[in-house]
Amino acid sequence: MPFHEKPILPRGFRCASRNCGLKPTAKDLALFVSDVDAAAAAVFTRNQFPGAPVVLGRETIRGGRLRAIVANSKCSNVATGARGLENARRMATAAAVEVGTTADRVLVSSTGVIGVQLPIGTIERGLRGIAADLQADPLVGAEGIMTTDTYAKALSCSVGDATITWVAKGSGMIEPNLATMLAYIFTDAAIDATSLDRSLRAAVDVSFNMLSVDTDMSTSDTCAILANGQAGAVPAEAFQEALVAGCIRMTEMLARDGEGAKHLLRATVRGAATDADARIVAKSLVNSPLVKTMVHGADPNVGRILMAVGKCVDCAITPGATSARINGHEVVRDGQRASFDEPAVRTALHAEVIDIEVDLGAGRASATAYGCDLSAGYIEENAAYYSS
Amino acid sequence: MPFHEKPILPRGFRCASRNCGLKPTAKDLALFVSDVDAAAAAVFTRNQFPGAPVVLGRETIRGGRLRAIVANSKCSNVATGARGLENARRMATAAAVEVGTTADRVLVSSTGVIGVQLPIGTIERGLRGIAADLQADPLVGAEGIMTTDTYAKALSCSVGDATITWVAKGSGMIEPNLATMLAYIFTDAAIDATSLDRSLRAAVDVSFNMLSVDTDMSTSDTCAILANGQAGAVPAEAFQEALVAGCIRMTEMLARDGEGAKHLLRATVRGAATDADARIVAKSLVNSPLVKTMVHGADPNVGRILMAVGKCVDCAITPGATSARINGHEVVRDGQRASFDEPAVRTALHAEVIDIEVDLGAGRASATAYGCDLSAGYIEENAAYYSS
Repeated sequence: MPFHEKPILPRGFRCASRNCGLKPTAKDLALFVSDVDAAAAAVFTRNQFPGAPVVLGRETIRGGRLRAIVANSKCSNVATGARGLENARRMATAAAVEVGTTADRVLVSSTGVIGVQLPIGTIERGLRGIAADLQADPLVGAEGIMTTDTYAKALSCSVGDATITWVAKGSGMIEPNLATMLAYIFTDAAIDATSLDRSLRAAVDVSFNMLSVDTDMSTSDTCAILANGQAGAVPAEAFQEALVAGCIRMTEMLARDGEGAKHLLRATVRGAATDADARIVAKSLVNSPLVKTMVHGADPNVGRILMAVGKCVDCAITPGATSARINGHEVVRDGQRASFDEPAVRTALHAEVIDIEVDLGAGRASATAYGCDLSAGYIEENAAYYSS
Repeated sequence: MPFHEKPILPRGFRCASRNCGLKPTAKDLALFVSDVDAAAAAVFTRNQFPGAPVVLGRETIRGGRLRAIVANSKCSNVATGARGLENARRMATAAAVEVGTTADRVLVSSTGVIGVQLPIGTIERGLRGIAADLQADPLVGAEGIMTTDTYAKALSCSVGDATITWVAKGSGMIEPNLATMLAYIFTDAAIDATSLDRSLRAAVDVSFNMLSVDTDMSTSDTCAILANGQAGAVPAEAFQEALVAGCIRMTEMLARDGEGAKHLLRATVRGAATDADARIVAKSLVNSPLVKTMVHGADPNVGRILMAVGKCVDCAITPGATSARINGHEVVRDGQRASFDEPAVRTALHAEVIDIEVDLGAGRASATAYGCDLSAGYIEENAAYYSS
């Protein structure tokens, strides 16, 4: 899938971001707007303590139409009770006034510390006049939703006359389940809300839902797609293919930028008896602290791959027929350590992208999961996140 | 449960340990012997790539009788195929010759790097004459099975005229399932093998099986109990109570000595709808990297507790009735951040033992899980474990 060298927004979409005072100087507020009502679908975190914006978002998305997304960082508005929900509604209203629509056409997201009330006055003041700043570069909007990300993340590609654009953030508290961190997708293709919902769920299933930075499922995960129709209809199959490819590429970008990470760790499991088994084993590999530290240290302690596969006690595995490769080097054959060129594997482990491929010898299903290495940087970022 | 100030072995048990050359200078070989055949039971890892000693051990324990346990560190004899199994058998035979019994009365354990063939010649030479070193201090045996442990671990207590003694090791690759790292329990109480098996499984269920240092299930976990009867029968209830208490205390010692750890993290979940829910949520708390780094940094980012509870998407939780405490300080009430004395909680988080208590407001079941904080020390130890 060829992505544009410099990401653009589709026709009829614009965005803006600002520092409104939640953070000392960095951008902390973003607004994404469609010039006309767009068909929309969204999936949210399955965490049982969803943030107020997620509670409100589930209500909003039922309409299947959105004009805008407004998001702040620094405070997630989670575990904040009735006052938190009221603040989320006020945030939607403030954005709606700026855009010239109603609050029920605005999706709200908040990320940051859990359990602190949203400084809604600061946000309302920050939104005033923001419509004048709206422009076409998606990276400007992406900058406004960053937390511990090291760079602003946006992607775009063409499908016929239409464009699809992804804007996302997230580098910690990431193992989404039926949703992801904040990921917004914009397109000018003409698609109805029901098809959009089906397309989004299928794409998320093989991308954001196979991502794990640290096994911790956020209370704020949101992935939304807006289609404003300005480019007319496009072939459904080509659209879906592009949607999946972009979701996977954005998933890789989020994984590679995991807190403290230096590597993208991609685990592909083949020869599984069922899709579910393939997904569980692939996730087990990218979630194993011992596999992650092996990658971080470029130390070919390849037995840990078997450990991480074998601990999936409920999956069908043929131990004697299991094989594994690291960036193409066979390190496990027939369930035993293969004889391999150790210096070569050590060198391979220094690559930015580490592909672990495992064949379970138990069937024909496969899956890929996306993660990163585990470094002291992760500990540093999270041992004092609240206070810093 | 009062444990002896200095641990002792029960009557009729002795042990020895040596450096046989697997490591440069540290002890790497241990032998535990009962003077007479002892009734025995054991549980092993559920990992689907069990080490050769585990495969052999499952066969051996069927007899319900043991005279000795022989264990080496540095090499785990896992993923080593038919040759590995043959080497495990040779190790049992070499120990049996020393003790004056047969190989089917000897339990073998190996820990260390996965996927490397056991230097069986070195071990056979190392075992020669070891019987002359047998003595009564369990810490001598404990020293021989250490890997990344920072100290040798043994405990003992009295039940009537009998003694129960625990010897264990383990500080990484630890989230046992129906078993644990190497944990050996010796008693001179008279108990038949069937009762012993039942007692052991019940005790392991609330202790070693609720332990997680890093979510990674070892391929070598073994927990065995030997009862040689030399103190005669003891009341079953008192014995079980002591067995459970010692298993829990040893679990706490293993958790506190987790790789790189400075804290014992104990998560107690109450008000759960079922025992299974209580166990899942308690494990989720001690396994969450963000809860672990919160404890490491003494940073009262208490919203992470709700995140780790809420990500148990299949457990019955009443979000509005959920409360949480850290070392007695209420930090969550009715599913929201409680107003609490932040400096006091920050100080409390500096204690060596951190108790997180959560009430789910959904029933009457409870469970406790045992873990530790996550520090840069864990990364350091595991980024180059194979090479160092």
